[in-house]
Amino acid sequence: MESFNNKRVLITGGLGFIGSNLAIRLVQLGAQVTLVDSLIPEYGGNLWNIEPVKEQVRVNISDVRDEHAMKYLIQGQDFLFNLAGQTSHLDSMQNPYPDLEINARAQLSILEACRHHNPAIKLVFASTRQMYGAPRYLPVDEKHPLAPVDVNGINKMAGEWYHLVYNNVYGIRASVLRLTNTYGPRMRVKDARQTFLGIWIRNILTGQPVLVFGDGRQVRDFNYVDDVVEAMLLCAASDAANGEIFNLGADDPANLQDTAQLLVQAAGQGSFALVPFPPDRKAIDIGDYYADYGKIKATLGWQPAVALQEGLQRTLAYYRTDGAHYWEEADHARS
Amino acid sequence: MESFNNKRVLITGGLGFIGSNLAIRLVQLGAQVTLVDSLIPEYGGNLWNIEPVKEQVRVNISDVRDEHAMKYLIQGQDFLFNLAGQTSHLDSMQNPYPDLEINARAQLSILEACRHHNPAIKLVFASTRQMYGAPRYLPVDEKHPLAPVDVNGINKMAGEWYHLVYNNVYGIRASVLRLTNTYGPRMRVKDARQTFLGIWIRNILTGQPVLVFGDGRQVRDFNYVDDVVEAMLLCAASDAANGEIFNLGADDPANLQDTAQLLVQAAGQGSFALVPFPPDRKAIDIGDYYADYGKIKATLGWQPAVALQEGLQRTLAYYRTDGAHYWEEADHARS
Repeated sequence: MESFNNKRVLITGGLGFIGSNLAIRLVQLGAQVTLVDSLIPEYGGNLWNIEPVKEQVRVNISDVRDEHAMKYLIQGQDFLFNLAGQTSHLDSMQNPYPDLEINARAQLSILEACRHHNPAIKLVFASTRQMYGAPRYLPVDEKHPLAPVDVNGINKMAGEWYHLVYNNVYGIRASVLRLTNTYGPRMRVKDARQTFLGIWIRNILTGQPVLVFGDGRQVRDFNYVDDVVEAMLLCAASDAANGEIFNLGADDPANLQDTAQLLVQAAGQGSFALVPFPPDRKAIDIGDYYADYGKIKATLGWQPAVALQEGLQRTLAYYRTDGAHYWEEADHARS
Repeated sequence: MESFNNKRVLITGGLGFIGSNLAIRLVQLGAQVTLVDSLIPEYGGNLWNIEPVKEQVRVNISDVRDEHAMKYLIQGQDFLFNLAGQTSHLDSMQNPYPDLEINARAQLSILEACRHHNPAIKLVFASTRQMYGAPRYLPVDEKHPLAPVDVNGINKMAGEWYHLVYNNVYGIRASVLRLTNTYGPRMRVKDARQTFLGIWIRNILTGQPVLVFGDGRQVRDFNYVDDVVEAMLLCAASDAANGEIFNLGADDPANLQDTAQLLVQAAGQGSFALVPFPPDRKAIDIGDYYADYGKIKATLGWQPAVALQEGLQRTLAYYRTDGAHYWEEADHARS
C-alpha cells in the first residue's frame, strides 16, 4: 500500500459511494487525490460523502462525457480509478441513451485521452456482474458466458472490454473488477438506483416497511465497501492485474428474505414484507446469483474481511448519524 | 420463401455487399424492398450493386445514425434486415467514435424506433465472429466465450445484444447471425476494409500480386454470399429464430496460403507472396478461426451450398465483367 504515497490519483465518480470511500482511504495512504463527479441528482454523487477529507482532496465537478475536461484532468495522473457510471437498470431501459453515453462512449473517450496524453497511467475499471445475465451455473466465475439482460449490462460490457482492448493493443495498463452487490456507508439510499439495500436501509431507519420482491428466495452475494476499496487498490498496485477481469464475491451469500431479516435484527427496528415483482423489474431479473472470487484471491490475495452482519451494523451506524444528509436531500429534490 | 411475397422489407446497408444481394433475391421473391444506405465512400455501398433491380427497389440515401429518418422509414415495414455497419477493424482502432456511433448507438436508436413505432416488425441483425476474439477451441460454437480484440468487435457485440434484449424484454422479434468471412459478387474490392478477399481479387484481376500476411497458415472459413442471404431469409421467416444467435460457417475451411493458391488457379492468372504482418494488423489478429454452424443447421435447416472453389469462380466472373464499376470508382475517389 506504499504504492500510493505521494502519487497522483484521479477518481471518476469520486463523490459517489465507492469513489468517496476509496478517496478517504487513498488520502490516508498519502495520495494526491482528484475527484471528478457530475453530481447529477439521479446518480450517486453527494458532497457529504467526502466530509472527512474535504480539505485534503481536489474536487472537480464535471461529467465523464465532457471529453475536453477529461483530457485535461487525466494528464499527469499516476492512477485512474474509473468508477463513474450510470447504475440503474430500469433507467437504462426507459431511456437507453444516457446509459450508452456514460457507460460506453465516455469510457472510450477516457481511454483515448490516456492513449494520446498519458499512456503510462494505470487504470482500474469498476464493472458489474450484470453482464453475466441469469447465471447458467453457480457460483459464477469469470469464464461464465456473457449474456446481459438489459441495456445497462450491455453498455457496461462494452465499457470494460474497451479497457481490456486498450490494455492488450496499446499497453495502457488496465484491470477490470466485476462487482456484485456493494453496500456500506455513503451508498445512495434515496431509491434503489444503486442497490436495493440502500432503500431498505433508509426505510428501516425512517419507519417504513422494507419491500422484498417475489418470494424473497433469490440469492445474492454482498461486499462491504471497504473490501471493494481494498480490491481496487490491489489491482492498481499490481502489474499481475493488467488486462485481467476479476469477480468480487463473498463467502456468505444469502437470500433476500434472510437478508431483510438480518437487517431488521441488526437495526433492532422495522419490518419487511414480500410483495409481487413489479413487471418492469421482473423482465430484467436474473434469479439467483453469487460469484466465485477464486481468481482474485489466487492472483492478488484478496478476500472479503467483513461479513454481512457486521457490515450491515456498520452501515446502519453511519446512516443513524449521517442519514439526514442522504434522505433529506432527496426530499429537497422532490419539492 | 413465400413469406416475403408482397411484404414490405427494409434493408439497412442495402447498397452494400450483402444488402444488395439480399435485395436482388427479395425482389425475385416478390417483396417491396426499400434500401437505406449512406454511400459513405469508405464503406460498402455502391449503386452499381443494384443495377439488376434498380427499377424495382426504392433507394433512400440516409445514414442509420439519422434517428429521424430511421424512425420514419421503419414504420409500416414487415421485415428489417439490419446490415449497415462499420466493418473495418483498423479504422475502429484509429478513430473509435464512428464505429461506436454506427455499430452501437444507431442500433439502439433503430430498436427504439421499432419499440415505439413498429413493435410487430421482425429483425435480422448481421453480426460477426469478430467478438469471439482469438478462439480458445475450434470449431467455435455459439457458447464460445466472447473476448473481442478490437473496438469494432466490442461495438458489434453491443449491437447484437441490444437486439437480443429488445427481443427478450419487449418482444421485438429479432435474431442475430454471426457471419464469418463472406465473399462474392458486389463485395468491396477497393481495399481490405470489408474482407481481405476483396483486395485479393482486385489485385489478381488487375495484375498486382496478392499479399498474404505472416506464414499464410492462418485458417479461415468462407461463405459465398448467396448462402448468407439464404440464412438471413430463413431467420426472418421462422419464429424459431427469435432471440437466437447463430453462427454461419463452412465445411471447407482453408488456410490463407491455400486460399490464395486456389484463387490464382481459379483465375488462371496472378500470383501471391508471403509478407510480414503489418504491426497494426498483428496486434488485432485472432489466429485460426472456423465455426461450428450446427445450431442453425439443426434449428433452421441451413447449410452452405457453394464450395469455396465454385464461389471464387463465380466471384471472379462477376468482377471480370463488372470490376471497373468497383475499382475505377476507387481511382476517382483518390483523385
